[in-house]
Amino acid sequence: MLGLEIERLVKLLSRLPGLGPRSARRAVLHLLKNKEQNLTPLLAALQQVDQNVSICKTCGNLDTANPCQICTDLKRDEKLLIVVKDVGDLWALERAKALQGRYHVLGGLLSPLDGMGPDQLNLMSLIKRIESERPSEVILALDATVEGQATAHYIMDKIEGFGIKSSRLAHGVPIGGELDYLDEGTLLTALRQRTSI
Amino acid sequence: MLGLEIERLVKLLSRLPGLGPRSARRAVLHLLKNKEQNLTPLLAALQQVDQNVSICKTCGNLDTANPCQICTDLKRDEKLLIVVKDVGDLWALERAKALQGRYHVLGGLLSPLDGMGPDQLNLMSLIKRIESERPSEVILALDATVEGQATAHYIMDKIEGFGIKSSRLAHGVPIGGELDYLDEGTLLTALRQRTSI
Repeated sequence: MLGLEIERLVKLLSRLPGLGPRSARRAVLHLLKNKEQNLTPLLAALQQVDQNVSICKTCGNLDTANPCQICTDLKRDEKLLIVVKDVGDLWALERAKALQGRYHVLGGLLSPLDGMGPDQLNLMSLIKRIESERPSEVILALDATVEGQATAHYIMDKIEGFGIKSSRLAHGVPIGGELDYLDEGTLLTALRQRTSI
Repeated sequence: MLGLEIERLVKLLSRLPGLGPRSARRAVLHLLKNKEQNLTPLLAALQQVDQNVSICKTCGNLDTANPCQICTDLKRDEKLLIVVKDVGDLWALERAKALQGRYHVLGGLLSPLDGMGPDQLNLMSLIKRIESERPSEVILALDATVEGQATAHYIMDKIEGFGIKSSRLAHGVPIGGELDYLDEGTLLTALRQRTSI
């Protein structure tokens, strides 16, 4: 009854993470109620992104420039390489404004049960990049999960011979976190790796 | 750091109801990770809707046809007129598949404090429509709020002389609702308007 075109748009929007069928319908209504203010700019922005954004051939980031702005930013420490699972993690680290290094996006984590082996990830390009660029430090900023650890081990194994300093993120109580809500594993790690004050 | 185009798309998406900045970023990543499967169809659907959907000149519904499919549907009871606040409410009633009548979309409710007077709503067109079409019943399917009641009163006042049966939705316990979670007003109404079994 919504009309085929509207129905189709609702269906496509409801596939976006964070939107269900109900919120997709509300979003479509919001777009249609004031086309000039809501639909037209969104359409233009999507077209721009569709035409201009590509995957950086050096690091795997998404950007309108290729190589991306981060890879060509001369202010960044070219000797610091941060390995991340995907572009979302890269964005998260950039928001934290902690480090001015360069990135390498793996495109996932090793997970044999899900069919994610070394060949499905940008691992070969990472090893080659480390071999040729010889960074002074490689930070493995990967998830604190079994898959993240397996991937970190795999990379460590491959770059062992290069004699390059490598590190992983600290584990512990998240800032603002209440102990009551934390799992035992995190608490145990936070206790074991306590720092003196 | 995301690039101007991506930043702009995140901003526009985060304005949609149900999406915040965080989920908008995730949605953009989802679209960009697999352009052909995610971005391209969404873009096409938005363009279709942008070009083809307009406001029905009879009832105020949004559709690719004008007058809309509901207004021109011969299977519907043309003597039953259902007055709704907006197109979202029309869709909700259509999903309930309760009645096969026709609609009139007001575009809002009377709310003097928010600057919504009779002239800001499709009230004049409703009165004229009732006067000329002479439906056998007018259902005021409006919110059970002060604004909804004020709007219902206004309409009743205007169509009083026409001698047309009018009705409003029933108030009471929502289906599936637990008494414990209901407000006193609803419980009081449900008790007062109890039906014998």
